Amino acid sequence: MKFQPLDDRVLVKLLDEPEEQSAGGIIIPETARQPQKRAEVVAVGTDEELKELIKVGDTILIDQYSDTPITIEGEEFYVVERSGILGVFKKE
Amino acid sequence: MKFQPLDDRVLVKLLDEPEEQSAGGIIIPETARQPQKRAEVVAVGTDEELKELIKVGDTILIDQYSDTPITIEGEEFYVVERSGILGVFKKE
Amino acid sequence: MKFQPLDDRVLVKLLDEPEEQSAGGIIIPETARQPQKRAEVVAVGTDEELKELIKVGDTILIDQYSDTPITIEGEEFYVVERSGILGVFKKE
Amino acid sequence: MKFQPLDDRVLVKLLDEPEEQSAGGIIIPETARQPQKRAEVVAVGTDEELKELIKVGDTILIDQYSDTPITIEGEEFYVVERSGILGVFKKE
Amino acid sequence: MKFQPLDDRVLVKLLDEPEEQSAGGIIIPETARQPQKRAEVVAVGTDEELKELIKVGDTILIDQYSDTPITIEGEEFYVVERSGILGVFKKE
Amino acid sequence: MKFQPLDDRVLVKLLDEPEEQSAGGIIIPETARQPQKRAEVVAVGTDEELKELIKVGDTILIDQYSDTPITIEGEEFYVVERSGILGVFKKE
Amino acid sequence: MKFQPLDDRVLVKLLDEPEEQSAGGIIIPETARQPQKRAEVVAVGTDEELKELIKVGDTILIDQYSDTPITIEGEEFYVVERSGILGVFKKE
Repeated sequence: MKFQPLDDRVLVKLLDEPEEQSAGGIIIPETARQPQKRAEVVAVGTDEELKELIKVGDTILIDQYSDTPITIEGEEFYVVERSGILGVFKKE
Repeated sequence: MKFQPLDDRVLVKLLDEPEEQSAGGIIIPETARQPQKRAEVVAVGTDEELKELIKVGDTILIDQYSDTPITIEGEEFYVVERSGILGVFKKE
Repeated sequence: MKFQPLDDRVLVKLLDEPEEQSAGGIIIPETARQPQKRAEVVAVGTDEELKELIKVGDTILIDQYSDTPITIEGEEFYVVERSGILGVFKKE
Repeated sequence: MKFQPLDDRVLVKLLDEPEEQSAGGIIIPETARQPQKRAEVVAVGTDEELKELIKVGDTILIDQYSDTPITIEGEEFYVVERSGILGVFKKE
Repeated sequence: MKFQPLDDRVLVKLLDEPEEQSAGGIIIPETARQPQKRAEVVAVGTDEELKELIKVGDTILIDQYSDTPITIEGEEFYVVERSGILGVFKKE
Repeated sequence: MKFQPLDDRVLVKLLDEPEEQSAGGIIIPETARQPQKRAEVVAVGTDEELKELIKVGDTILIDQYSDTPITIEGEEFYVVERSGILGVFKKE
Repeated sequence: MKFQPLDDRVLVKLLDEPEEQSAGGIIIPETARQPQKRAEVVAVGTDEELKELIKVGDTILIDQYSDTPITIEGEEFYVVERSGILGVFKKE
């Protein structure tokens, strides 16, 4: 079963967040962590403009407070609106 | 009697939510459950653009807080606005 | 005397709400009742688009909190904006 | 001296409200009264679209909370915005 | 020195408000007074549409809560936005 | 080093405010002072329409609460949005 | 790895803020400091209009409260929306 986000939303899978552990291996308390998360794009919404900007497989940076959790066949994904996508990481 | 939603609304019937019971059969308390619901589309609104995106019979994911209950001939349905539709589940 | 609603409003007459009494004849307490009401359209506003969607005599479902009561020649009506009309009931 | 309302406003004179007294002559307490008022249009604003919909001499229904009182040569009038005009009463 | 209001604002000088004293010469307490003020237009903003509607020398009715005081060469004026202009008084 | 404001902002330098001292030389307490400030325009934003209305060297009246202080090479300036510019003083 | 901001955002690196120390070397307490920060533009968003106004390498002034921190390969950057960019410093 596939999930097709509507309009300007994307479906993403959160990536490991290695930054949550600081250089010296000390666990950073919750409130000191960054408010953004890296995520991999699994499906892009029906909006034509968004399809030009974001592709399946892209690693994006999302605003932690704008995502919505959803479970598909036991796996956890997030639905994120375009306004919650800060940008795309690109390989040089 | 049929119900024709106005503008960008859809009429849906909530589907069973098997995820409410976790893998080991433990009942997940209310606050830990997902805030979204799966629903089957029964009628699509009068908005032309929406008719292109959502079809009768589609399974959609709706935001739990944006739906409006309505009883037609004893059966319970929900009226949901387009902004409350997160996406459509598609068979692969 | 007739009342012509302005812009995207309709004038309606509330219909009996048989659902307020449950199947077994038990009176449902106020807070458990549905927040919507069925109403018959008596006059449609001056907005051209609305006139295409809603006709005099239609039974519509309105959002309980968006209606405005008005008395014309002793009879009680409600003025409802388009955003408060959830949809139209149609005979099959 | 005449008053020409700007943009989408109308100048009105409140009409007697016979409904404030119920059929049996009992005075209805303030909180039970209707929140709308009937008024006669004295001048229509400069907005071209509004001039098509509302004419001087029309009896309109206005939302009690959207009107603004103004005194011209000792007489009391109200300035009402288009959004506060619910509709127009027409003679059959 | 002249003051040219920007965009849809007008510069006005407040007029005497004889209505603040009632017919019988009794001073009306502050809270019972009308919330609007009469003012003479001294300069009209740069907005082309506004220039068609309001002329220098017009007596206008302004909403008391939307004006902004300004002192030019010892005289007190008010800057008022278009939304705060209720209408124009015209000589018959 | 020069500062080019973005979009519909202007960079200004506050002018002396002789009105803060009343005619008889009495210092007016803070709360009784006017809420606006006179300022000289040092740079105009990139918005084409704004460039037509405001020129470098103009004396403008700004809303005290909409300005943003900025220090360039030791001198204090303010960045003001178009909506915070009430008008322009012109020499007769 | 590079980061491409979406829509009207820019990726910036904060610059040293020598103004935080006053002329006489006295440390200015937090509340007395300027609410803006200087930053160097590292990447410009996908919006065509923004690309005309802001270039990689520009020094911009940003509103302290509109930036969002992000860590890329150990270095700290900020994502800033166009509305949070007050202007661009230019060499004379």
